[in-house]
Amino acid sequence: MTPRTTAGEHAPDRFSINQMTVKQLPLPELVDACTGLGVRHVGLWREPVRAYGVEDAAKLVRDAGLTVSTLCRGGFLTATDPHARVAAIDDNRAAIDEAAALGTHVLVLVSGGLPPGSRDLAAARERIADALAELAPYAAQRGVRLAIEPLHPMFASDRCVVSTLAQALDLAERFPADQVGVCVDTYHVWWDERAPEQIARAGCGGRIATFQLADWTTPLPEGVLNGRGQLGDGAVDMREWRSYVEAAGYDGPIEVELFNDGLWARDGREVLAETVRRYAQHAVPHGA
Amino acid sequence: MTPRTTAGEHAPDRFSINQMTVKQLPLPELVDACTGLGVRHVGLWREPVRAYGVEDAAKLVRDAGLTVSTLCRGGFLTATDPHARVAAIDDNRAAIDEAAALGTHVLVLVSGGLPPGSRDLAAARERIADALAELAPYAAQRGVRLAIEPLHPMFASDRCVVSTLAQALDLAERFPADQVGVCVDTYHVWWDERAPEQIARAGCGGRIATFQLADWTTPLPEGVLNGRGQLGDGAVDMREWRSYVEAAGYDGPIEVELFNDGLWARDGREVLAETVRRYAQHAVPHGA
Repeated sequence: MTPRTTAGEHAPDRFSINQMTVKQLPLPELVDACTGLGVRHVGLWREPVRAYGVEDAAKLVRDAGLTVSTLCRGGFLTATDPHARVAAIDDNRAAIDEAAALGTHVLVLVSGGLPPGSRDLAAARERIADALAELAPYAAQRGVRLAIEPLHPMFASDRCVVSTLAQALDLAERFPADQVGVCVDTYHVWWDERAPEQIARAGCGGRIATFQLADWTTPLPEGVLNGRGQLGDGAVDMREWRSYVEAAGYDGPIEVELFNDGLWARDGREVLAETVRRYAQHAVPHGA
Repeated sequence: MTPRTTAGEHAPDRFSINQMTVKQLPLPELVDACTGLGVRHVGLWREPVRAYGVEDAAKLVRDAGLTVSTLCRGGFLTATDPHARVAAIDDNRAAIDEAAALGTHVLVLVSGGLPPGSRDLAAARERIADALAELAPYAAQRGVRLAIEPLHPMFASDRCVVSTLAQALDLAERFPADQVGVCVDTYHVWWDERAPEQIARAGCGGRIATFQLADWTTPLPEGVLNGRGQLGDGAVDMREWRSYVEAAGYDGPIEVELFNDGLWARDGREVLAETVRRYAQHAVPHGA
């Protein structure tokens, strides 16, 4: 189908909206808003998809002509407790099944933090590798690639012990490239002078599974999770980072994923339209 | 003089209290509390020292038998505006003079963030190098070494564009080791798997100017500045990091520097005594 355009707006081809950016929109409204703005790709989250029904969600987006760029998220693979580890593996298998049902080839993994009382980051990273050994073949059989997302080091203790692209690639490269890749998210890597060379490394190995955008703004809010800035509001040069992933061969959807209380308090359709405009202003190469 | 001991407490020899940890204590009370607990070293901050009078502060700590492990802080050298740059250089010269007057050999530098509207971290780091070229000889002539402190990457935009020990050493190594070193602070580097090898690099070059401790606790507070945890409360293995700097040859004072609203709300002498105990529990090698 040809997406409708509204008020002359038409999202750039590779723009993808991550569902979390406009989580105030129920899934049918999100899909309708995407259609209206000519958005072709959407990154979905498990919780709202499951609440709507996985098969129903798959049909909804498919019928609207949308592709699902990623499913967020699996992971949390660092537990030491054996029961918790089994539960995490089972939950990740379910996430892989859901990704396959939605027709996306990418399941983003947030690897997990330190277990309570632990101070051993290296051991936690090894437990992620152990879990990937179980999950990666299962995912590949279903046409899904696991994308290890390094999170900003401020999340290292409580959310993700994988803090840099270098660490994420060290893990991913233990597995075939069609099974495990990485997620490059500007918010998490922008400060890291090694990230450009690591993006090149990822590209050489065919490991860039997805590319996400958010800007870095301060002051950070309490808990620091919901401070991701709208494109153009912060310290990140979106075009520069896009040029790195494109030089490394990535030509897939570019997802805007913002966790931001201010944006969530506004009208979701307005936020989506603004995000499309900001992407066009800040993330599309000059002259393109 | 021999410090008094109170209630059997006597701080380990190399323990140093950074003034900011107990900023609720006026300088004379801090010095008295240190004497009572057998604390031999104190890290001072410019603002309270200037408020008290630099010469008077120097005499107060000297008469109490305390050494000044560091003065915090110079830096903020990333401005692009020419007048702001001149003012920053002048202010850092004053900080060097104050350090010399206090008898400390270490001035800690927090390098500064991105200027308003800038997204160029690399250029900001070069401006730091330019400023160091002016300041380092001036400091060395006064017996003061500049200690570049990498701050956690969550401060990269607004406080310090130097985010890792590797970056700090890349800057420091442009200058003689007796002019520019680095500050190793567990709070800022604990997440970085490269930090142990960078500590070894710093040790080989004689670049470890000071070693500071704080624990990593979550959730981080709004603005993230005042969330530094008391030793033992968080994710950092203090003995492990101490072993790295000692293997690299560092045998100077070990400063506990906590910015923490909860600690500041309490009785300062009680917090100092607790900090001495926590240091003994968590930062002194087993069997020592």
